[in-house]
Amino acid sequence: MRLLVIGGSDAGISAGLRARELDPTADVTLLVADRYPNFSICGIPYHVSGEVPHWRNLAHRTTDDLEAVGLHLQLGHRAVAIDPAAHTVTATTPHGDETTFGYDRLVVGTGAVPARPPVEGLDRLGPADGVHVLHTMDDTFALLESIKRRQARTAVIVGAGYIGLEMAEALTTRGLHVTVLEQVDQVMPTIDAELAEPLAEHLRAHGVTVQHGTQVHAVTADGDRLRVDTAAGSHHGDIVLVVTGVRPDVQLAADAGAALGVRGAIAVDRGMRTNLPDVYAAGDCVHTYHRILDRNVYLPLGSTAHKQGRVAGANALGGDAVFAGSLGTQAVKVFDLVAAGTGLRDHTARDAGYDPVTVATTADDHKAYYPGATPIRIRVTGDRTTGRLLGAQLLGHRGAEIAKRVDVFAAAISYGASVADVADLDLSYTPPLGSPWDAVQVAAIGWERVSSAVPHR
Amino acid sequence: MRLLVIGGSDAGISAGLRARELDPTADVTLLVADRYPNFSICGIPYHVSGEVPHWRNLAHRTTDDLEAVGLHLQLGHRAVAIDPAAHTVTATTPHGDETTFGYDRLVVGTGAVPARPPVEGLDRLGPADGVHVLHTMDDTFALLESIKRRQARTAVIVGAGYIGLEMAEALTTRGLHVTVLEQVDQVMPTIDAELAEPLAEHLRAHGVTVQHGTQVHAVTADGDRLRVDTAAGSHHGDIVLVVTGVRPDVQLAADAGAALGVRGAIAVDRGMRTNLPDVYAAGDCVHTYHRILDRNVYLPLGSTAHKQGRVAGANALGGDAVFAGSLGTQAVKVFDLVAAGTGLRDHTARDAGYDPVTVATTADDHKAYYPGATPIRIRVTGDRTTGRLLGAQLLGHRGAEIAKRVDVFAAAISYGASVADVADLDLSYTPPLGSPWDAVQVAAIGWERVSSAVPHR
Repeated sequence: MRLLVIGGSDAGISAGLRARELDPTADVTLLVADRYPNFSICGIPYHVSGEVPHWRNLAHRTTDDLEAVGLHLQLGHRAVAIDPAAHTVTATTPHGDETTFGYDRLVVGTGAVPARPPVEGLDRLGPADGVHVLHTMDDTFALLESIKRRQARTAVIVGAGYIGLEMAEALTTRGLHVTVLEQVDQVMPTIDAELAEPLAEHLRAHGVTVQHGTQVHAVTADGDRLRVDTAAGSHHGDIVLVVTGVRPDVQLAADAGAALGVRGAIAVDRGMRTNLPDVYAAGDCVHTYHRILDRNVYLPLGSTAHKQGRVAGANALGGDAVFAGSLGTQAVKVFDLVAAGTGLRDHTARDAGYDPVTVATTADDHKAYYPGATPIRIRVTGDRTTGRLLGAQLLGHRGAEIAKRVDVFAAAISYGASVADVADLDLSYTPPLGSPWDAVQVAAIGWERVSSAVPHR
Repeated sequence: MRLLVIGGSDAGISAGLRARELDPTADVTLLVADRYPNFSICGIPYHVSGEVPHWRNLAHRTTDDLEAVGLHLQLGHRAVAIDPAAHTVTATTPHGDETTFGYDRLVVGTGAVPARPPVEGLDRLGPADGVHVLHTMDDTFALLESIKRRQARTAVIVGAGYIGLEMAEALTTRGLHVTVLEQVDQVMPTIDAELAEPLAEHLRAHGVTVQHGTQVHAVTADGDRLRVDTAAGSHHGDIVLVVTGVRPDVQLAADAGAALGVRGAIAVDRGMRTNLPDVYAAGDCVHTYHRILDRNVYLPLGSTAHKQGRVAGANALGGDAVFAGSLGTQAVKVFDLVAAGTGLRDHTARDAGYDPVTVATTADDHKAYYPGATPIRIRVTGDRTTGRLLGAQLLGHRGAEIAKRVDVFAAAISYGASVADVADLDLSYTPPLGSPWDAVQVAAIGWERVSSAVPHR
């Protein structure tokens, strides 16, 4: 069995590892376009900030680790064509030659590429001018080089999604003054405005200039600096970072005849099979089955890429693994706060045909008498008609176990729990770490109290 | 509707609050034997340690709070007789008189009393001699008074359950040298020895003398000090604290004809109904429905008392609430470590007819490259035949979100999840707080790997 994998990031590596685990005789080769297999893209902000001093530490596993479990890594090999009929992939080598790899089964894990918003001037500017995107290790090195070369003291970040906010913290930690511009009228558009607003305040309290509801029109080199124009005025920065989301990198697969699905991502079933024979795909290049919506969405997340890669690796070897689905569960640390969410929000639930009610509560992370208690804001979304738990969003202090509290909700949603069921869970309690009714249960009880008084729409 | 509640701790207060919430016209009276309604017994160690400077802060709610929601508190009223036929309760007043309260519905929340182990000398020694139990605020005041009066510099704690360990930390924090003696051959008998051993080492590293597998034979006053004799030798302390568990306080209910259940606790159904008409009971005085075992056990925990009290309060008003059941979920912080567990362990699962396999894994709480990562030891117990998740135990650093990670397992167990389901959950990931495969999922995958190779028993 020759398994060929295109891509050396989360999905591709997971597929290769799983295949070798299931069949130690499988011949597994990975084509890795750059020289950084299995790097944690999510960790880039912490290298930029200086908290991870050496970039090599961002690797989930070293090249030696990967080769030790029998993965053949072809670094610097960029796949340029798949021939599904011939079961071959053509790639360029580090020397610029072309070479061809045969396969019995193929896993496509080409990932995503940064979306370039339609901003005047962006097409003409790049790393040499101090204008950056951030998706690969090479992007990271270019950004760090720019900061050094331009002796950057100010940065403008276009986009206040989770990467934008993590980078705002990272660059602030490095000593830069940061301005964050966001088109939508709040930071972190994946959480409700009621939680985004205190998050924006927290950024401001740490010296970040935050402007949302601000469409960026143009970026221009202005002497040694860069000027970013918005309807509300101009901002100057020594560097500009554009982090406005990603789009799936599908050209290779599409050229080979792969059907595309939601948002132009590669269409796969829950076994990560494409429409092409013996070709699987996983990670940021595919659409993702959503566990509550029961349909495919585009939700590129590292945790999902690992899971999908594992399914693809198993099935490429003849297995019958099924991707259980995503809830879009996410957590982001911004300075001393953590924002997290899982499942549906009010408007996404309504769009999906539910009769949602979203109720906000605030409860301490642990008993107030024990030192260090901090409030957690929780917004629970449930279906008024059935009582089903649909989603939850949390905002609290980084020490308040927010990341695992959202996971309690994620677990409950996954099993079809009602909101009331969450209040009934036997959760742990010790005064330094919780309360007899945990904050997630206070939120569930609060939801029940309010929702029973809200008329159906 | 006259609702009478015997007991002013977690179960009784929860019942009263729920009744008033459901029917603001209900006449709710609570007979509170001492003067400390709604105190957090679980918080006592943190007042003893000095971390909670004023004992009043240990109250979940003040007397004023409770009265503001319409609870009539009869402090210093100890119930001495229930007449179920006449629907009356006789109580002694603070002045030593007797008085009688009528009721339409009664909730018994008499709680538990400390178990006194059969140790020579214990019957003759008490707080005046520096020998203490610890279950009430009065016990707490007596202990603190003893520490002061005897200028205690050393303490011997008999019992290394969670209260014994929390008190070992508390007294060490106060500056005492502490010796902990435990009859069973490990500390924290509610978790597996493999996790208890590093916990004992951690206590030792903080200066606590830990001796397990040590039966205490006698306690004797020895000059100004106390001598505790074991088969392995004698230990001296200025004070002795006996914390070897509790037994349900059922005399009052039993005298009135209440049927008793497991371990002599008051027998109740899942609606918290006793066999006596219009009499409900909840909290440490009753047996508790176990969610996996599907039978009653004795599992006195504050979080459970709150939930049972809430059910009793609702049903006393004619509701049909059902106690969902306990998993024995528990967390305890001991210095810088947290031990936690939920569900069944290997031997309890085997006794219940399962074919359990328990697998140990260790994984970091978050990505190792981000500063401050610490290892979490997890032991997952699952049924070999069905793959069902039965229990989990965790040990890790206090900052490693152990308490909420055990809750993810608790949620999964509650919904009948398989171990494999845990690996499929869409849990949150951000490098400072987690990993693409969270530690709980590394544990689940580890279990699957090992269990598939273990033959059936």
